[in-house]
Amino acid sequence: MAVGKLLYAQSGGVTAVINTTAAAVIDTARKHGVKVYAARNGILGALREDLIDTSKESAAAIRALAWTPGGAFGSCRYKLKSIEENRAQYARLIDVLRAHDIRWFLYNGGNDSADTAHKISQVGKALGYEIACIGVPKTVDNDLAVTDCCPGFGSVAKYTALSVLEASLDVASMYESSTKVFILEVMGRHAGWIAAAAGLAGNGPDDAPHLILFPEITFDEDAFLARVKATVERVGYCVVVASEGLKNAEGRFLAEAGTRDAFGHAQLGGVAPALAALVKAKLGYKYHWALPDYLQRSARHAASKTDHDQAWAVGKAAVEYALAGENAVMPVIVRTSDAPYRWKIAPAPLAKIANHEKKLPPSFIRRDGYGITAAARRYLAPLIRGEAAPPYGADGLPKYVRLKNAAVAKKLPEYRVADR
Amino acid sequence: MAVGKLLYAQSGGVTAVINTTAAAVIDTARKHGVKVYAARNGILGALREDLIDTSKESAAAIRALAWTPGGAFGSCRYKLKSIEENRAQYARLIDVLRAHDIRWFLYNGGNDSADTAHKISQVGKALGYEIACIGVPKTVDNDLAVTDCCPGFGSVAKYTALSVLEASLDVASMYESSTKVFILEVMGRHAGWIAAAAGLAGNGPDDAPHLILFPEITFDEDAFLARVKATVERVGYCVVVASEGLKNAEGRFLAEAGTRDAFGHAQLGGVAPALAALVKAKLGYKYHWALPDYLQRSARHAASKTDHDQAWAVGKAAVEYALAGENAVMPVIVRTSDAPYRWKIAPAPLAKIANHEKKLPPSFIRRDGYGITAAARRYLAPLIRGEAAPPYGADGLPKYVRLKNAAVAKKLPEYRVADR
Repeated sequence: MAVGKLLYAQSGGVTAVINTTAAAVIDTARKHGVKVYAARNGILGALREDLIDTSKESAAAIRALAWTPGGAFGSCRYKLKSIEENRAQYARLIDVLRAHDIRWFLYNGGNDSADTAHKISQVGKALGYEIACIGVPKTVDNDLAVTDCCPGFGSVAKYTALSVLEASLDVASMYESSTKVFILEVMGRHAGWIAAAAGLAGNGPDDAPHLILFPEITFDEDAFLARVKATVERVGYCVVVASEGLKNAEGRFLAEAGTRDAFGHAQLGGVAPALAALVKAKLGYKYHWALPDYLQRSARHAASKTDHDQAWAVGKAAVEYALAGENAVMPVIVRTSDAPYRWKIAPAPLAKIANHEKKLPPSFIRRDGYGITAAARRYLAPLIRGEAAPPYGADGLPKYVRLKNAAVAKKLPEYRVADR
Repeated sequence: MAVGKLLYAQSGGVTAVINTTAAAVIDTARKHGVKVYAARNGILGALREDLIDTSKESAAAIRALAWTPGGAFGSCRYKLKSIEENRAQYARLIDVLRAHDIRWFLYNGGNDSADTAHKISQVGKALGYEIACIGVPKTVDNDLAVTDCCPGFGSVAKYTALSVLEASLDVASMYESSTKVFILEVMGRHAGWIAAAAGLAGNGPDDAPHLILFPEITFDEDAFLARVKATVERVGYCVVVASEGLKNAEGRFLAEAGTRDAFGHAQLGGVAPALAALVKAKLGYKYHWALPDYLQRSARHAASKTDHDQAWAVGKAAVEYALAGENAVMPVIVRTSDAPYRWKIAPAPLAKIANHEKKLPPSFIRRDGYGITAAARRYLAPLIRGEAAPPYGADGLPKYVRLKNAAVAKKLPEYRVADR
């Protein structure tokens, strides 16, 4: 029987499979006789000593958790400052860990979280409290360094390719007398991974998506319009996938370029409507546009099996690494073969992952800038393979679980998180 | 062996299951030894003598068609004028039907299509050409009269409830430090059926969606803001479902109330961003919004089994009615029991369906105007039950079929469709 407890926290934007990782963490720890606490609302809960006792959840609830989107314990957008800037905050974290005999801290997130986990392990050592910190990868943006891909990305990639495929069939049916240009806006403010995944919806020269607009490529209005026109004249219609992070030559986000709403307020968000209006004004084509926003990252019903399996595997490995005495590492996905697709989990130092951002390689973007290459397909294709649909209830909706999230009794004085 | 051929045409906006009806029509006709032609791009193809010989498609292709979204033969938005206004156009239709020995015409669409089918049967009689016209119901809007529900609606209803459920779990995980108000815009310009279906995502007082904005209820800015504020203060976050057809007290669509895009052009579409900006300006809450547009009506991957079964049943019945000598009728869905849900197909006169619009009953909208009643749940719940996911390929995407759509040789002089 291991001594001490394990603390698990979710960080940043949630995904369709972050709870799959959570379920794997809890399931694996239970098999090793280790009690798991979860921080409510991520690192904020750890700072506030707002902890959840996951041992109050049934085995059935934890099984269902593996198929439930969102972040079951709450997540947050909160980046700890550097140790130099706010040493007291790190000291508070160590106080909370010590008060509850927490010996292992698993932080499930992206670059920032890897950095935080790394720092906590260092501070613990400096303050005489041994805490093993394991980063657990998660992000729809797929921008984590070292790991071949990130749990969460495969499912949003599948949802995006699937949505483009389906909507394109709709447009193909109607373009003769209706919509000629359809624009789908996808997430990815800094890197075009999700936009690239849309390319899996088709592979022929006339297959949708006909144009992908990557954040890596400066938006050129004239060239874009010429492409749309040529596509409509050749194919009859044009399906465009645009990354929310698209920028013009002045470096401004198209989505923030001064749109005014019905109430006269400056409006954020919406590359798709901006492009649609441009197409209408300059080319006169009837358009439709879609912006799935959170729907894309919470679409557990359309999750990829590869993604589900990897999300589970990193959770399981994180606990095994922790209990084996590893520290300041992250279980990453190592691709050992493209065809057949094979992968394994291996530990990588958090120091190599923290604060790095993996960009879409230039070799993944077609020379003309509007599509993906064969290399991109080789990389992306296995990530959307297989279906991992949740069990459905008699009501026709997935059986998503709501946990009890029973609070652990506090032992320390109240702490207010400043600088929010 | 029956004499003559059957012509099938798709009309108006396509759905996730209109091809299921098409597959049922072809499958049933084949079993009766009747050859099916399809009009390319709906009634436009019938006018232009642009016909497709479906006998060139394999049995496997027709089986796959039943699981493929979009309109496989092309659809159109084109309403024939009245007989008085354009008798020549009706005469042309009869010429085409006669030239190809078409004895049965099945028109798969909504109110307008029922009207067109009705008129063609009358004109045929007047011109001495016996043509049996059967309307086949289809519309995501669920606004057809007489039938209990419309094939196509159950699947968009399921997609909408599912999307609200999933996105709400996302918002629930993050609201403490991120998005507090999430707005989903759904289709339904004139009737709030799809918005109402979102209500199936939850049933408790604090369950999402917290507010549904129906096109039947005039938008009241102050009352809406007060509700959003109260919900955020009570629940922590607020999920709003807004119909695209929402109007203000002046009777203007909110989506068309003068939005200007980044390029300074007037912009159509977007109740969700307008509401989001209002919430931000007046209440200061962080928001996100989604507008799935065509994704909602082409989401075959999330289709309802009830809907799939009904789409098949109306196609099968339409052929059986035609071959049994019925004319100017539509197979409609008759609900015989709520619990257990039971339904049957029965013929209804097109004259009773043509040009009528079924509104959301006032008894389905909660007295406060922001939610659905128990009566609405009783009606809606069975329509989203059961899953009818398409078969998937090894690539992780549904195996949607593309038909050959082989053209039938023309026999008549060219005809140009005017007044487009």
